[in-house]
Amino acid sequence: MATRGLIEYADASAEVRTVYDDIMATRQTDYINNFWKALASDPPTLRRTWESVKQIMAPGALDPAVKEMIYLAVSSTNGCEYCIASHTAAARKAGMTEAMFSELMAVVGMANETNRLAAGYRIEVDERFKT
Amino acid sequence: MATRGLIEYADASAEVRTVYDDIMATRQTDYINNFWKALASDPPTLRRTWESVKQIMAPGALDPAVKEMIYLAVSSTNGCEYCIASHTAAARKAGMTEAMFSELMAVVGMANETNRLAAGYRIEVDERFKT
Amino acid sequence: MATRGLIEYADASAEVRTVYDDIMATRQTDYINNFWKALASDPPTLRRTWESVKQIMAPGALDPAVKEMIYLAVSSTNGCEYCIASHTAAARKAGMTEAMFSELMAVVGMANETNRLAAGYRIEVDERFKT
Amino acid sequence: MATRGLIEYADASAEVRTVYDDIMATRQTDYINNFWKALASDPPTLRRTWESVKQIMAPGALDPAVKEMIYLAVSSTNGCEYCIASHTAAARKAGMTEAMFSELMAVVGMANETNRLAAGYRIEVDERFKT
Amino acid sequence: MATRGLIEYADASAEVRTVYDDIMATRQTDYINNFWKALASDPPTLRRTWESVKQIMAPGALDPAVKEMIYLAVSSTNGCEYCIASHTAAARKAGMTEAMFSELMAVVGMANETNRLAAGYRIEVDERFKT
Amino acid sequence: MATRGLIEYADASAEVRTVYDDIMATRQTDYINNFWKALASDPPTLRRTWESVKQIMAPGALDPAVKEMIYLAVSSTNGCEYCIASHTAAARKAGMTEAMFSELMAVVGMANETNRLAAGYRIEVDERFKT
Repeated sequence: MATRGLIEYADASAEVRTVYDDIMATRQTDYINNFWKALASDPPTLRRTWESVKQIMAPGALDPAVKEMIYLAVSSTNGCEYCIASHTAAARKAGMTEAMFSELMAVVGMANETNRLAAGYRIEVDERFKT
Repeated sequence: MATRGLIEYADASAEVRTVYDDIMATRQTDYINNFWKALASDPPTLRRTWESVKQIMAPGALDPAVKEMIYLAVSSTNGCEYCIASHTAAARKAGMTEAMFSELMAVVGMANETNRLAAGYRIEVDERFKT
Repeated sequence: MATRGLIEYADASAEVRTVYDDIMATRQTDYINNFWKALASDPPTLRRTWESVKQIMAPGALDPAVKEMIYLAVSSTNGCEYCIASHTAAARKAGMTEAMFSELMAVVGMANETNRLAAGYRIEVDERFKT
Repeated sequence: MATRGLIEYADASAEVRTVYDDIMATRQTDYINNFWKALASDPPTLRRTWESVKQIMAPGALDPAVKEMIYLAVSSTNGCEYCIASHTAAARKAGMTEAMFSELMAVVGMANETNRLAAGYRIEVDERFKT
Repeated sequence: MATRGLIEYADASAEVRTVYDDIMATRQTDYINNFWKALASDPPTLRRTWESVKQIMAPGALDPAVKEMIYLAVSSTNGCEYCIASHTAAARKAGMTEAMFSELMAVVGMANETNRLAAGYRIEVDERFKT
Repeated sequence: MATRGLIEYADASAEVRTVYDDIMATRQTDYINNFWKALASDPPTLRRTWESVKQIMAPGALDPAVKEMIYLAVSSTNGCEYCIASHTAAARKAGMTEAMFSELMAVVGMANETNRLAAGYRIEVDERFKT
């Protein structure tokens, strides 16, 4: 069980419902997931986190699908079980195919490998990469 | 200085030069960076790592630019100084604009934040995300 | 199941019971948690780990409550499910309120975010921070 | 050099200066550090990050000194050189003594150790810690 | 459930069966574990990962038992539940005794601790260690 | 510069010198490295850390060379620059050849890769690995 419990829409304060409504409208869904329901136990945290996510994940120079795949790449690197599950779903909803998933994971794996080779071999940054 | 030293093309064995040549041909460059020069101290490591990177970073369901940005996202998450520098260069060469860079970093930052919120609040994975 | 099993008080050697007794006396509890029961499969590990924890978590320039919250901050950063659970309990026992918990998690999330922004943007340490 | 360069106050747009002014007023300083100068290359990132930090680090159920120490604990866990340097300075400014620093680091070290023991020994969460 | 499902031998393509056969022959077992069955959903990933693991884990200057223990050390550091479980089994099969396990975990714990002390205390690398 | 400065033998208290002497005797060296000199600013930390390292790194079921290589594997995984440098030196002193180093790093890289594949593909632990 979540440390602070989960706040269902029916039990939420007006302040929390305002955020829930915005999440559902922005994501075109009628579902509030456990992450938001858990943060709702501290309304400032819920509001601030949603506002940041809303801004950051909006379409921009990068497509939402690419943004979700980056989110999944980071979550896999950190081994966050909740986030891997929720962002795999979000990435699929945004257009990630199974082929894209496999390629994404291959890059994630390789990057985690070469990051440690670079560290262990104590490799100095090339001059041309310093800008 | 790299733990095993850096092997310059001029001093490389035929086996190592074969890999260097393939890197330069594949990446359309005449430059071998310090990462490859360091791994060259163990030719099996150089060969195996290059073969994997070559396969994984080739165009596919994901564009090379997206793959490089994922690589940069993971490297930033892990704080690998060498890889952040080299993959920022590679991503720019592949088409990452400054606007894309900022959006990428915003997602990386946010994902690292929410990964820990999900862990600290001990949030259970929603049933619908388990597939 | 724990890799080496859990050693219950009733089945413990005199050496292990000595440590268990000290844990219970120091923490004013009659409960030995699974972490200690698992380490007890290797008595030197149990003894050394408890002695260090006992010293480090004792009241000092920092209150026990602050120390437990730091422990929870690190455990959340590392995503250690066991430690997040046990140290949330310990922090609450030491005086952490729900308001403190939310603020603590907000700092943990933000720090994990800005750590990666600092890395990805390759920001140099200001001269004045080098001392 | 920072990936996107550092924006000095004198060269900053009105939008960026507004944030710089708020940082200086809130922190009662005339100094803008490299972290903010680097993020300023993307004004939305600067604004959003500062707004979150401002909210999160304000006095609340936890003192600013405790919040800065938590920030330092996380930054040390992640090995973020920039953040360790800047938050050591910030924590000292907020009241962290050298004795507090040593105790803080001892807890950080111990937590990172026991997090891995809990993982490696595959210890199950005690029933009583699941709430 | 694994994101892409698990491919059983009976349902596998010829390409996948070739890899499964090589795994079983190399490891002298009739069992294909879930890791390989999951990667099999993307045959290039399965093939490339197995080829690398096969090369890297073969006896060499380091014994297979030492290699498996290093694998377990890394997996414990990263908190990868799957890998800790599978590599504990593999290390035991390769000759890791319970005494070796406890000593291994003690080193893992201590290294994770001193890594953070070195970072938090901002310790400079000694000249003599730079080669 | 180290956060709390470095305490040279000549300037050390009797308590600190006792630890320094034990380090030199145990490691058969006349050199105290920066890690110990930095921790010496807090004598309890120095003493406790040395006592633990001394116990943990002593010959046992695992050779000192294997223990140093595990230490290097963890330090490379965590990207700790200081520790990678000092433990590469220590491992070499204990008998690690360049061939062993390359094999060690190959395992470290591969483990960091497969740890994330296991996480990203959300692979369930096989029944037979749960003991």
